Amino acid sequence: MPASYSTNMRFKFPILAIALEAVIIILYGFFITYDDGANSRLIHNNTGQIEQFYKIYPSFQDIHVMIFVGFGFLMTFLKNYGFSSVGFNLLIAAFGLQWGILMQGWLHHLKDGKIKVDIFSLINADFSTATALISFGAVLGKTSPIQLLIMTLLEITIFACNEHLVTTVLKAKDVGASMTIHAFGAYFGLAVSRVLYRPGLQGGHDNEGSVYHSDLFAMIGTLFLWMFWPSFNSAIAENPDGQYRAIINTYFSLAACVLTAYALSSLVDKKGKLDMVHIQNATLAGGVAAGTSADMMIHPYGSLLIGFTAGIISTVGFKYLTPILASKLKIHDTCGVHNLHGMPGILGGLAGIIASAMASEKVYGPGLIQTFPTGRSGIVQAGYQAAGLGASLGVALIGGTITGFILCISFWGQPPDQNCFDDDIYWELPDGETENENLLSAEHGRQNINAEA
Amino acid sequence: MPASYSTNMRFKFPILAIALEAVIIILYGFFITYDDGANSRLIHNNTGQIEQFYKIYPSFQDIHVMIFVGFGFLMTFLKNYGFSSVGFNLLIAAFGLQWGILMQGWLHHLKDGKIKVDIFSLINADFSTATALISFGAVLGKTSPIQLLIMTLLEITIFACNEHLVTTVLKAKDVGASMTIHAFGAYFGLAVSRVLYRPGLQGGHDNEGSVYHSDLFAMIGTLFLWMFWPSFNSAIAENPDGQYRAIINTYFSLAACVLTAYALSSLVDKKGKLDMVHIQNATLAGGVAAGTSADMMIHPYGSLLIGFTAGIISTVGFKYLTPILASKLKIHDTCGVHNLHGMPGILGGLAGIIASAMASEKVYGPGLIQTFPTGRSGIVQAGYQAAGLGASLGVALIGGTITGFILCISFWGQPPDQNCFDDDIYWELPDGETENENLLSAEHGRQNINAEA
Amino acid sequence: MPASYSTNMRFKFPILAIALEAVIIILYGFFITYDDGANSRLIHNNTGQIEQFYKIYPSFQDIHVMIFVGFGFLMTFLKNYGFSSVGFNLLIAAFGLQWGILMQGWLHHLKDGKIKVDIFSLINADFSTATALISFGAVLGKTSPIQLLIMTLLEITIFACNEHLVTTVLKAKDVGASMTIHAFGAYFGLAVSRVLYRPGLQGGHDNEGSVYHSDLFAMIGTLFLWMFWPSFNSAIAENPDGQYRAIINTYFSLAACVLTAYALSSLVDKKGKLDMVHIQNATLAGGVAAGTSADMMIHPYGSLLIGFTAGIISTVGFKYLTPILASKLKIHDTCGVHNLHGMPGILGGLAGIIASAMASEKVYGPGLIQTFPTGRSGIVQAGYQAAGLGASLGVALIGGTITGFILCISFWGQPPDQNCFDDDIYWELPDGETENENLLSAEHGRQNINAEA
Repeated sequence: MPASYSTNMRFKFPILAIALEAVIIILYGFFITYDDGANSRLIHNNTGQIEQFYKIYPSFQDIHVMIFVGFGFLMTFLKNYGFSSVGFNLLIAAFGLQWGILMQGWLHHLKDGKIKVDIFSLINADFSTATALISFGAVLGKTSPIQLLIMTLLEITIFACNEHLVTTVLKAKDVGASMTIHAFGAYFGLAVSRVLYRPGLQGGHDNEGSVYHSDLFAMIGTLFLWMFWPSFNSAIAENPDGQYRAIINTYFSLAACVLTAYALSSLVDKKGKLDMVHIQNATLAGGVAAGTSADMMIHPYGSLLIGFTAGIISTVGFKYLTPILASKLKIHDTCGVHNLHGMPGILGGLAGIIASAMASEKVYGPGLIQTFPTGRSGIVQAGYQAAGLGASLGVALIGGTITGFILCISFWGQPPDQNCFDDDIYWELPDGETENENLLSAEHGRQNINAEA
Repeated sequence: MPASYSTNMRFKFPILAIALEAVIIILYGFFITYDDGANSRLIHNNTGQIEQFYKIYPSFQDIHVMIFVGFGFLMTFLKNYGFSSVGFNLLIAAFGLQWGILMQGWLHHLKDGKIKVDIFSLINADFSTATALISFGAVLGKTSPIQLLIMTLLEITIFACNEHLVTTVLKAKDVGASMTIHAFGAYFGLAVSRVLYRPGLQGGHDNEGSVYHSDLFAMIGTLFLWMFWPSFNSAIAENPDGQYRAIINTYFSLAACVLTAYALSSLVDKKGKLDMVHIQNATLAGGVAAGTSADMMIHPYGSLLIGFTAGIISTVGFKYLTPILASKLKIHDTCGVHNLHGMPGILGGLAGIIASAMASEKVYGPGLIQTFPTGRSGIVQAGYQAAGLGASLGVALIGGTITGFILCISFWGQPPDQNCFDDDIYWELPDGETENENLLSAEHGRQNINAEA
Repeated sequence: MPASYSTNMRFKFPILAIALEAVIIILYGFFITYDDGANSRLIHNNTGQIEQFYKIYPSFQDIHVMIFVGFGFLMTFLKNYGFSSVGFNLLIAAFGLQWGILMQGWLHHLKDGKIKVDIFSLINADFSTATALISFGAVLGKTSPIQLLIMTLLEITIFACNEHLVTTVLKAKDVGASMTIHAFGAYFGLAVSRVLYRPGLQGGHDNEGSVYHSDLFAMIGTLFLWMFWPSFNSAIAENPDGQYRAIINTYFSLAACVLTAYALSSLVDKKGKLDMVHIQNATLAGGVAAGTSADMMIHPYGSLLIGFTAGIISTVGFKYLTPILASKLKIHDTCGVHNLHGMPGILGGLAGIIASAMASEKVYGPGLIQTFPTGRSGIVQAGYQAAGLGASLGVALIGGTITGFILCISFWGQPPDQNCFDDDIYWELPDGETENENLLSAEHGRQNINAEA
């Protein structure tokens, strides 16, 4: 191995991590305080906030599991990159949620110079990390933890601004964040990946694949994402009936999506076999696509239709579009976030436009004025939804491109091509894992190595 | 490999899956609507339903985890069938819950031609899939996904009819569904397995066993089932105190069951060693056996006694009964569902009969009339409980047998004996997994293969 | 293998397990009854208890997951001891919770000769098992299941007495149990480990290490502990605002801890690489250290500071202190519980002292008298906190030492040195796992074995 790795993290990484945390602590000292419901001094007038907290806390924990176990294990499918997948996921999310609370607080919740933290702050903080984790999926295996921390810092900053634009300024509805998290995170990550494109990996990389057990670890991630997605899409709904409806709609969309993801996975394979990549990812597209319209009166069959469509486009995307993106557009997408978050996110945005346009007093009853901003008709709202989708895509692409160029600075320790998708450069591996590869590879070929790694 | 596999799924499977989903969407368009509490138009008079939803949603998510992670990973113990175990589990459950909502709705909840979906519908839908997943355990590794979808369709149809008979017509109590889900699912699956009996596998199959890591994956399933079983047994209790009691009783039954399952596993082994099969399964028998009587006043020591007994009969069943079933009755039971769901389900039914017979105003107080149908004494209720148990067993055996014969049709692509318990016929395995087996098997014997698979 | 193993468990283990369960059932028959809220006879006056139950049940299930999946999988990092890690964890916890309910009931809740079991009993029972599971971490791989059951029985007895002393007599606050569970469990286990010291293992043991996949299994444990720690630290808070605050504080402490744990892990490594041992464990130290003061008004930046510090001392402890403990003090600590629970537990106790001393009417408002026992100033409370910390450490060390000597009795079947850290002496391993080791080890060295085990 070359001695001149820029990937030696010994001082760069710890100093960056500690400095970020130190700055966070100082900023929290100035800006962050407890919500009244969690403030011993103010509690006696705030029992309503406590009741609200009890109702939402279980959903928060579901979302927490999605962020840390769901996203973390979903990416462990790579045979030699499991430590980095689940480990950097934890690092990014733990930093991102702290930064997200500040950014979202400054933009939305600053009162008398203070940001009050409540259960919705924690949920929104988790949400903000999701964008960075989605983008992480696009550059998985090709970036150093230093680059990832910087990307997280920049992306959550830009995300919070776009979210403010879409949901507060434009007042577009996006309860499950198909547009502001999923499409945003995907296209941001793809733009970063485009800038960081490595011609040297065009022919593929030995480590860019799974082994049997790594695919099973990834299914842990898939299932926890799948199961808890109704909580993700419903937790911040404005009205209780909207929350209830978002759960039912997401549940159905996900169920329908499974059937079409399986069907298409078999259909596009020469021998009719299923592909684990599709099952791990495309079964979740129904959750993404139901996001924007989850709390609208789209009816159960509407939810099923959304999931039905999402499962198809996601699987077809994995099979046919991902290779084209890589070869023609020079966008290498390690986890296929374009298929899981990108296109289904756009589909979700479109479903939101259509559902808004079709909204009427007849279907919504007096709930219509609670669902849409005062005074807007369904058609007008549909226009704002389209603006929100466009904004999310545009900001993501521009923000991702700029971020990509910042990440190009060699000081951040981007790994050389031959060390991509390999835990060995960032992790002390169990004794003998590395030597063993060398020992055995000559004799038995790659597969034996995979089994051990 | 023979070129004439009937197991090539390329068109049969996708067409079936898409057709089923399309029919579901059409039926949902006609029949399914939101519950009033989730309906924007009607919400303002239905805040009680919203409160109920918030109370029950956490239990729903626990049950959701049991269905998808619990059942799914429990079956990954097979060394070369992990993809199919967790993957087909997801497929069956995602389809089954959609069909279950229709079947249960038609039988129980049809009003003005509409079925209103609320949080209990989602829970009951998950429940209905459990029967199919239990039966899946009996035929695991020996059936194609096409067969499994058809079995799910038929079994949930028959399950819903039996459930209607037992709980609505007979008014037998079965809050945790020892009889209507566990015993029913087990004996249905065993009947199917009997009809599909393969003489060619009588001597065992190389792939029908575990490796070290596959047993650890299975423990993920075991633990999530074990932990969340109190939610399963309590979620649809009629009264809040019954729900509370069901949680306490199930918690104790499961704890006692662990002690006897471990004790017996060691006791029946020549060297006193523990067997992972027993630990993965028999520790759960306490949850099954506590099901019927979970919301009755059986007292904590009564719960412990049920769990104590369940752990013993389940472990002994695995050790001594499963081989006899296979050799004498030609019933091959891959996961031992007879020991985890069958016998403990019957035990649960018996416990329910005894607990009903012993019920009195002295113990239940004014709660007695809330616990049992109006006007019935404990003894009379015990008779109806017995009828419910008998009905569940009878319907399961008859329904399973008929279903088995339908599944015999060769068009459904049942795999040949030599491809049983092998993901390779249904899944694109990671590069080299298959070739590698051939490469190495000659040299090192089976075990090396297991490590890689 | 020698024929004279004292580790043959065939009769000793089953008889002990069944006898313990039988005694438990008898004692439950005499002492344990349902809480009024779960009692059909008394429910109609107890709707408040039911409301309370619904609010707390989700937190109970989070804690349940921490105990069974969290602790269980965290210890599966050992390459050949995964069955025992997750399996004995289940056994200890299932027995411990039954015994904990009795011990805590006798000391705290005995009324008219009866102990009423409610949702808080179940939570506290889970808590009491946590002490035994932490101590299990110190002796992991070196003790038989018989020894573990006896240790659990003794430790929970002593724990319940110390907990009574600290929280009821001294009225020290310890909502997240930094002192009474974490520090107590760690030093108890270390004292046991000291007494059971094995000179024969001083030079290390071939099996005392991880392989790639076993480290990923361990991350399942880490993540579920990390995510649900806010529930652990908040569930038994006396006031709703304290519960809310404990969740926010713990969430922040854990997030900050991740950053410093990662930073230090890289900093202390020659090549700047991360170490999975640190990531699996030190990222959790923030949860431990936030325990005592979690429901106090320590402010979000205070929580971050606690987590920041905990991540540092835990990682540094793993790197530099654990080897010294082993070589100088003859304390072998398999899982490094001193670094995860011991020192962070003391840090938590100290944080509680400081937070108490700084408590004032100005910050707490009228909530002050709800937070601290009537009539005590912050400074006085700080003294009682210090007494509580001292008591926990003293009782743990004395109790652990006595327990250690009781466990020395050879009848309990302590395994010989060469069989330590090896599932093979307690478990029937999948066919060929053992033979295979012998077959291949001569040819390929250890690593190939690891891959298979």
